[in-house]
Amino acid sequence: MKAICMTDTSGPQGLQLLERDMPKLGPEDILVKVKASAINRADLLQTRGLYPAPFGVPADIPGLEFAGKVLRVGEKTQRFKPEDRVMGLVGGGAWAEYVTLHEGELLPLPQHLSYAQAAAIPEAFMTAFDAMVLQGGLGRFGRVLIHAVGSGVGSAGLQLAKAMDCSVAGTSRTADKLEQAKALGLDVGVLVSEKPAKFAAALKTAWPGGAQVVLELVGGHYVPESIAAMAPGGRLLLVGLLAGVACELPLGAVLNKRVQLIGTTLRSRALADKILLARAFSAAVLPLFEKQILHPVVAKTYPFSEVAQALADMSKNDFFGKVVLEW
Amino acid sequence: MKAICMTDTSGPQGLQLLERDMPKLGPEDILVKVKASAINRADLLQTRGLYPAPFGVPADIPGLEFAGKVLRVGEKTQRFKPEDRVMGLVGGGAWAEYVTLHEGELLPLPQHLSYAQAAAIPEAFMTAFDAMVLQGGLGRFGRVLIHAVGSGVGSAGLQLAKAMDCSVAGTSRTADKLEQAKALGLDVGVLVSEKPAKFAAALKTAWPGGAQVVLELVGGHYVPESIAAMAPGGRLLLVGLLAGVACELPLGAVLNKRVQLIGTTLRSRALADKILLARAFSAAVLPLFEKQILHPVVAKTYPFSEVAQALADMSKNDFFGKVVLEW
Repeated sequence: MKAICMTDTSGPQGLQLLERDMPKLGPEDILVKVKASAINRADLLQTRGLYPAPFGVPADIPGLEFAGKVLRVGEKTQRFKPEDRVMGLVGGGAWAEYVTLHEGELLPLPQHLSYAQAAAIPEAFMTAFDAMVLQGGLGRFGRVLIHAVGSGVGSAGLQLAKAMDCSVAGTSRTADKLEQAKALGLDVGVLVSEKPAKFAAALKTAWPGGAQVVLELVGGHYVPESIAAMAPGGRLLLVGLLAGVACELPLGAVLNKRVQLIGTTLRSRALADKILLARAFSAAVLPLFEKQILHPVVAKTYPFSEVAQALADMSKNDFFGKVVLEW
Repeated sequence: MKAICMTDTSGPQGLQLLERDMPKLGPEDILVKVKASAINRADLLQTRGLYPAPFGVPADIPGLEFAGKVLRVGEKTQRFKPEDRVMGLVGGGAWAEYVTLHEGELLPLPQHLSYAQAAAIPEAFMTAFDAMVLQGGLGRFGRVLIHAVGSGVGSAGLQLAKAMDCSVAGTSRTADKLEQAKALGLDVGVLVSEKPAKFAAALKTAWPGGAQVVLELVGGHYVPESIAAMAPGGRLLLVGLLAGVACELPLGAVLNKRVQLIGTTLRSRALADKILLARAFSAAVLPLFEKQILHPVVAKTYPFSEVAQALADMSKNDFFGKVVLEW
């Protein structure tokens, strides 16, 4: 099969389209012909050698999500058959013509969506759902603050929260992205131009009670300011670290407000945990796609052969939503 | 009634024994004649004006816990009668001859214990139980790291964890306290002499898998080192800040290990939450006192008239366990 392979750790320019063996099909696995994938920050880090693939995953083929068609099913599987349209998350290896994964991790593809559209769903929406709802305890009519609200995970979290009738505040460093987020329902948009970021005062005006949940996709200097913007008993889900891998933490505020700061990542979880997430997501979120309450946000689609250009374009942070790759 | 009152915020020397009105008895409250109380770090902070009492609590009478005898019961109460021996937590006001509190917050006093012994129980054991078990999810045979293991909350957490057959590691800045903790079952004692504290390497040798729960009673520079000592998915309960109210937080480790950092304090919680804790504590922990598996650790008992001296002595950090005050 063809695959986008890392020939070194020099970054996107080290990627090449090469021939590789097909992945092996275990008895509980499904073999999927990949039609489209998408780009995540983690892929960019991986091409630079900064985010190695976990055990059991192709070490040199990036790609964390896919949409495609079932080619073959393992002898002990029950839930899918050849030709089914599917999508899912993998620990790596999705920038290839074929992937295998446990049938429990696989999701059916919402009927009205193309492969390119569906490829923008798994990482963004499962990450946002897992963080805000399953771990953050966000409920209906809650108040959630989403940083980098124009990113793939940010725009997914915004839609999910609005589907739950929550109030949503979002930050961005680009006024244009805040405008696009408002079209998706953003209630309070805060343009961040300084460093360290200032948004807590603006948020307190809009929400005197503070944010109950923070989807922290930026990290670094955003974290202490997020804590200042939080409600007592609030939860901050630390998902991304674009602004830095350390911060000065105000322990007094964490203690007195009884704040919970929760680090989270999907990639390194045990199979059983990934299956649980896929089941919860199927039950709670996929129907919202079927009803067209949620929509994948595709900023741009590239052919796989232009992956290096796609990565370079994404690094400029100008896109609203996801960057998709198609065979 | 007599009460130890703050006449200013100059610290312990501002405390005076004065006459005050008795607290009012609401229909769901119990009026208790206080026989003994204990000292907490929070009291010391309060005398310096650094930890004001929450709404509804006497602003100038410190004291967060008591043991005593029921004097009168509110008309809608059902669970206690005059002369019952009781103990409990309050938001303040326990350094007085009388306190009132909602009957749901009140605990029966284990039969074999004196008032002075029982006064060492509520804050230490309820804080440790709430943090490690209810919020930290510590289970039987777990691995918990307890800082300041010779403190009131530390020695309580140690006993509770050993009663659950957990492995317990503890830190102290005093070798003598580690020896006393070993007599209570401490498995791994680490003497901390440097700043920033170093204990993660020693702990990794003993526990290659890392600590599942950290009872963080010290804060400051202990926090990043604690995170280095933790297992993936571990929970750090931030309870005390003796070593500082801020720290440099390694966000990358928090994210990749999926660590949960949870700030907690009992004092500012809603009544309903305090009642829930008292109920859970009654069910799970009081029987361990009745069976004499758990024991209050009283370092020294002072008469209330010597409270300033007791506070001064406690500030030296030489005591193992709690400092108790008696009428």
